[in-house]
Amino acid sequence: MPTPILTLLSDFGLKDPYVAEMKAVILTISPDVRIVDIGHMIEKFNVRMGAFVLASAAPYFPQGTVHVAVVDPGVGTRRRALLVETTRAYYVGPDNGLLMLAAKREGIQHAYAIARLELLLPQASSTFHGRDVFAPTAAYLTKRTPPVEFGSEITDYVVPEFTSPIVKDGAVTGEVLHIDDFGNIIANIVKKDLDKIDIELGEAITIKAPRKSLRTRFCETYGDARVKSVLALIGSHGFLEIAINQGNAAKKLGIRSGDSLTITR
Amino acid sequence: MPTPILTLLSDFGLKDPYVAEMKAVILTISPDVRIVDIGHMIEKFNVRMGAFVLASAAPYFPQGTVHVAVVDPGVGTRRRALLVETTRAYYVGPDNGLLMLAAKREGIQHAYAIARLELLLPQASSTFHGRDVFAPTAAYLTKRTPPVEFGSEITDYVVPEFTSPIVKDGAVTGEVLHIDDFGNIIANIVKKDLDKIDIELGEAITIKAPRKSLRTRFCETYGDARVKSVLALIGSHGFLEIAINQGNAAKKLGIRSGDSLTITR
Amino acid sequence: MPTPILTLLSDFGLKDPYVAEMKAVILTISPDVRIVDIGHMIEKFNVRMGAFVLASAAPYFPQGTVHVAVVDPGVGTRRRALLVETTRAYYVGPDNGLLMLAAKREGIQHAYAIARLELLLPQASSTFHGRDVFAPTAAYLTKRTPPVEFGSEITDYVVPEFTSPIVKDGAVTGEVLHIDDFGNIIANIVKKDLDKIDIELGEAITIKAPRKSLRTRFCETYGDARVKSVLALIGSHGFLEIAINQGNAAKKLGIRSGDSLTITR
Repeated sequence: MPTPILTLLSDFGLKDPYVAEMKAVILTISPDVRIVDIGHMIEKFNVRMGAFVLASAAPYFPQGTVHVAVVDPGVGTRRRALLVETTRAYYVGPDNGLLMLAAKREGIQHAYAIARLELLLPQASSTFHGRDVFAPTAAYLTKRTPPVEFGSEITDYVVPEFTSPIVKDGAVTGEVLHIDDFGNIIANIVKKDLDKIDIELGEAITIKAPRKSLRTRFCETYGDARVKSVLALIGSHGFLEIAINQGNAAKKLGIRSGDSLTITR
Repeated sequence: MPTPILTLLSDFGLKDPYVAEMKAVILTISPDVRIVDIGHMIEKFNVRMGAFVLASAAPYFPQGTVHVAVVDPGVGTRRRALLVETTRAYYVGPDNGLLMLAAKREGIQHAYAIARLELLLPQASSTFHGRDVFAPTAAYLTKRTPPVEFGSEITDYVVPEFTSPIVKDGAVTGEVLHIDDFGNIIANIVKKDLDKIDIELGEAITIKAPRKSLRTRFCETYGDARVKSVLALIGSHGFLEIAINQGNAAKKLGIRSGDSLTITR
Repeated sequence: MPTPILTLLSDFGLKDPYVAEMKAVILTISPDVRIVDIGHMIEKFNVRMGAFVLASAAPYFPQGTVHVAVVDPGVGTRRRALLVETTRAYYVGPDNGLLMLAAKREGIQHAYAIARLELLLPQASSTFHGRDVFAPTAAYLTKRTPPVEFGSEITDYVVPEFTSPIVKDGAVTGEVLHIDDFGNIIANIVKKDLDKIDIELGEAITIKAPRKSLRTRFCETYGDARVKSVLALIGSHGFLEIAINQGNAAKKLGIRSGDSLTITR
């Protein structure tokens, strides 16, 4: 049987002991697990960005991976702690939508409200569920503790409101999901949406953003545009991306996460 | 026997090859060790912050873990290289106090001045003891080399001057130990200190800082305050924390690491 | 047989899912490999900085390590994907010089243009070769797939133009290779170059930079200079370094990567 994989994602940053404390708890319970950081630089309290990054990375991990994610503005309130079982993975984290973009794509089989905290850390703090609730739950899962032992099955978990793009009158209107570290602008628009308004590779398109309107080409890859020129393409994540070949598109175009984008021919 | 765990903490940052060089040296000597980063974003030369982060994370690691920490303004001077054995772990690093907050809490059993450098790397550089002295020492420890083989036992190691809070006339006066990445302000004041001046959960308290005085409530968790409101609580590390629910308290209140804080009812 | 080691270096930063996606692909193919991050904070598109960091760290890894590096301004253009076998390691990445500073030092035995993409990911994207080409190639190498199976041998790979220092008329003229996170200024000048103009340890030297000229001492280690004073030394990487004891030399002296430096007695 292969070593189980456990991934971690959070908005904890890299200055503090918090991520290491989670890893220490996990390795104490499950010494053979392999821990992979998806990332800890999610913008503080930005559940939407956390959900996007988790959903992007999760499909590449092997069957049976346990994903722990903590972007948790509601820690210490009545928001529930959640364990989701999908067709190919487990997700552990706050019940605030963070896990659900990834989980829904894979197909949710069961969801549980983690409740038997006494099984976890004897003195679970009310401020650090990452270490005291989510980490031990995930560690026991990698040791084959059945999910049902952590709490009751629920169906009223929080589903995040990620809007779908609207296709109407020859225009696709979507929203910026994420600005990546290169400054690439990633929208909630996929190839199929562009097909509906007959946009083909190599064609010119018009993009309207709140503070900017531009005409550029729909390309296959960055190198199809001249260095420092704007282009649009379907990125490696499957979403529409506005990029500058070897440049920072978000900075140059003044486009931000959450901005609305309208695409026409 | 479980895989031995070796942790790394430093102020090296993440741009340079230095951390990877340490890991490479460790894995060459001890191929099966499991390396966990506590963190490399300690403020440059800030021994106090390094000591706080190490002491926060260390208790969660299993018995027998080897901790390597390098925040070392005195590299290349006469400061000694130190190996400390406690009741539950080993600590390797410069003799400048960095290791001692963690080690003293666990109970120091022996301390050694690492001296037989010729056992370590043939050409130990005088500028990178992390790679050439501490990493090999720690790697050999995970392979069960007895600590006494690295040098003579000493008792005059450097103990850091972390002040204890003063409780007097119904006031607790302490000091800010650390500002975490969320902007939470962590002081060297524990629950017992507050008990001495009869502060109970849910009560209002007054906090005097150098450039700011404020009245807030002593809560159990962030969610007990309204979003964007200030609160005080005992954090997951066991210390008094001044926080803003979903906000950055240090930035908002202008409080810095090292500032003195006086708490009254 | 020891666990194979696979290192990763990139300019991807730490906010995005990209590094985790590479690790997920690698672990799916080669579940027992040990992944070590050399670093992902290389300046965007700075092939020269990536080459320097890779060449610094690589020599410390054990024989047989597989290094994957991705700083790839030309992704999606006709630049080739490269696999290099040296006397002690494998290197996988873009054919833009990134791998060659490290590989040449070890001695290149064979280089291959990775071409049989259909062996790798069924749907290799044209924008993320790190995940779809380099990661699977490297993962299969750790499972002992012979390098020749990935493509044809080539000899016309790109060799980066890292200038050699010029020694003339009692002066060594070199170039700043890298500013490290401490602000230490690292130049392409080694001990032998300084020997040629008879500079010995402890002597005063003159350093001329574009916007600054200074006289300082050639020391053995940081502690040889007073705190906050400038010194020159041969760093742990073997190159000339201009540093400030417990300070940031690059910021203080206004010296940048790529600047020319002339050293005289």
